[in-house]
Amino acid sequence: MSGKQEIEDFDVVGAAAELKSGDRRALARAITLIESVRPSHRENAQQLITEILPDTGNSIRIGISGTPGVGKSTFIEAFGKFLTGQGHRVAVLTIDPSSKRTGGSILGDKTRMEELVRDKNAFIRPSPSGGSLGGVARRTREAMLLCEASGFDVILVETVGVGQSETTVAEMVDVFMLLLAPAGGDELQGIKRGVMELADLIVINKADGELKATAIRAAAEYKGAVGLMRPKSINWRPEVLMISALKKQGIEDLWAAIERYREARSKDKELEAQRRDQAIAWMWSELDDSLLSSFRRHEGVAVLLPELELAVKNRKMDPTAAAEQLLKAFLEK
Amino acid sequence: MSGKQEIEDFDVVGAAAELKSGDRRALARAITLIESVRPSHRENAQQLITEILPDTGNSIRIGISGTPGVGKSTFIEAFGKFLTGQGHRVAVLTIDPSSKRTGGSILGDKTRMEELVRDKNAFIRPSPSGGSLGGVARRTREAMLLCEASGFDVILVETVGVGQSETTVAEMVDVFMLLLAPAGGDELQGIKRGVMELADLIVINKADGELKATAIRAAAEYKGAVGLMRPKSINWRPEVLMISALKKQGIEDLWAAIERYREARSKDKELEAQRRDQAIAWMWSELDDSLLSSFRRHEGVAVLLPELELAVKNRKMDPTAAAEQLLKAFLEK
Repeated sequence: MSGKQEIEDFDVVGAAAELKSGDRRALARAITLIESVRPSHRENAQQLITEILPDTGNSIRIGISGTPGVGKSTFIEAFGKFLTGQGHRVAVLTIDPSSKRTGGSILGDKTRMEELVRDKNAFIRPSPSGGSLGGVARRTREAMLLCEASGFDVILVETVGVGQSETTVAEMVDVFMLLLAPAGGDELQGIKRGVMELADLIVINKADGELKATAIRAAAEYKGAVGLMRPKSINWRPEVLMISALKKQGIEDLWAAIERYREARSKDKELEAQRRDQAIAWMWSELDDSLLSSFRRHEGVAVLLPELELAVKNRKMDPTAAAEQLLKAFLEK
Repeated sequence: MSGKQEIEDFDVVGAAAELKSGDRRALARAITLIESVRPSHRENAQQLITEILPDTGNSIRIGISGTPGVGKSTFIEAFGKFLTGQGHRVAVLTIDPSSKRTGGSILGDKTRMEELVRDKNAFIRPSPSGGSLGGVARRTREAMLLCEASGFDVILVETVGVGQSETTVAEMVDVFMLLLAPAGGDELQGIKRGVMELADLIVINKADGELKATAIRAAAEYKGAVGLMRPKSINWRPEVLMISALKKQGIEDLWAAIERYREARSKDKELEAQRRDQAIAWMWSELDDSLLSSFRRHEGVAVLLPELELAVKNRKMDPTAAAEQLLKAFLEK
């Protein structure tokens, strides 16, 4: 089937209707479409997003970051089951730029969420594979919109915490949760720079049995650290909670905290404003990426760049002068 | 005098020689030149920077951030006098994007540094006025290079802590110091997001008299917070120090800490690598700014942009689609 024929054959209105009916296979197909890099698919995907845009937004978007070993899959299983039990429809998306579509890790993740995988009211999608973080982020944002149009009212976006992925997730959700293992004193994990202050909620997992005392101490330390930082919003000071995902303890309190957060930040229409800002920021982020791509692909620039970068590194050339030369090369022609 | 004549008249080699001789008036004139926005001056300034580039780099670059009321001027006076007393030549530059060249605040700052202003081995320059933070940053970086070529071996770059100015300063110095007032418990100042983890040194001022106990408590809390964050370098864990700038106590220990930092981070040539990275980042930052400027100035874009931004805000248009349309407009013509 030629690319052109695919565009002509693509029934946007039909695909949108299927999606909005809540058909899970239609949702999966739509997400596969937006993950594709083929130009014809990109066109169709854009058409579909534009078509369903009015039906998006009716969810709470929750970002979850946790380092390996913190029990993220067990947590998502427990949290997801709690939510569907309360009558919600829960979508779970993942941002993992290192993901490769090989059987191992994806299946591994899914088997740790045995019950949730089988839940009619849950939808779990592994990360789009490879490419840049920016590309993975775009696809995840678009997948989120498709899930919302399909009727999912809680979207969990989880990340494994590599590179800048936490910031990326925080910039597309309403509430950002940091999941931590209990640790104390010398063992206190070094939180990656910038991540702690992204958090609206700090959740210490495995707060049961032998680790309970450690969890309590860790909670106190994080509360202290949070107190030293200026909060994102005057309406919400980040809270520190303890849970045991394995024993399904504290999950209800966590949801209550998220609802408190939602209410506090709906004052002054803060969450609405945050989503608008995120959309505009997303547009500029895409523009920045595209401008830089066009720049790097430009013949004249591609020839000049390695030479000038080396000169700047070796202090043979001033950075400003190098930038001026490169821009000049780009704007000519 | 026409612009062209000014370029022809500009004696780069002579200006560079004057600068390198340590002539303070030549340094002041050179900095005024690089602050000018006139195209002919920009050309001359670039030539001068290129000429003296081999003579730069022989200094320790120290960034200082402190909120109003923390005693920054008193501190810089005490620290500066200590350093010149030790045989150093100290330049003090300021980043303050809100600066306007009106008498009030500039003179105010200078009169609080009465002795340092008169010190033959110190050079104090107020912030370039107005414009964007990026513009002020560029001029400050270039002023720093001129000071180094002029023989100053300690460069203090201070900022008043508005907007993104701390990040900007941290990206141009070897060591970044956060100056804080003693505060405790409910009074603990909320540190602006992202600033605490920029700090290589946290310095609590006014740790004397009635405030001493409070300072000690605050120091302990910040030590705790620092322990929760992953450090920038495996060779250095940020230290928390207490000083009294007014009583000139703790200044020697502070300098000793800076020298310890310098030594620790010279292992694995970390500081060299950091400077190289900063230079490359500076080049890309200038490129980004220029690309975005060209983009915004483009006729087709300028017409389309407000309309598309509104559509994105009101969820009438998908951000990715908006970005694609705008880029297309930019690349045509």
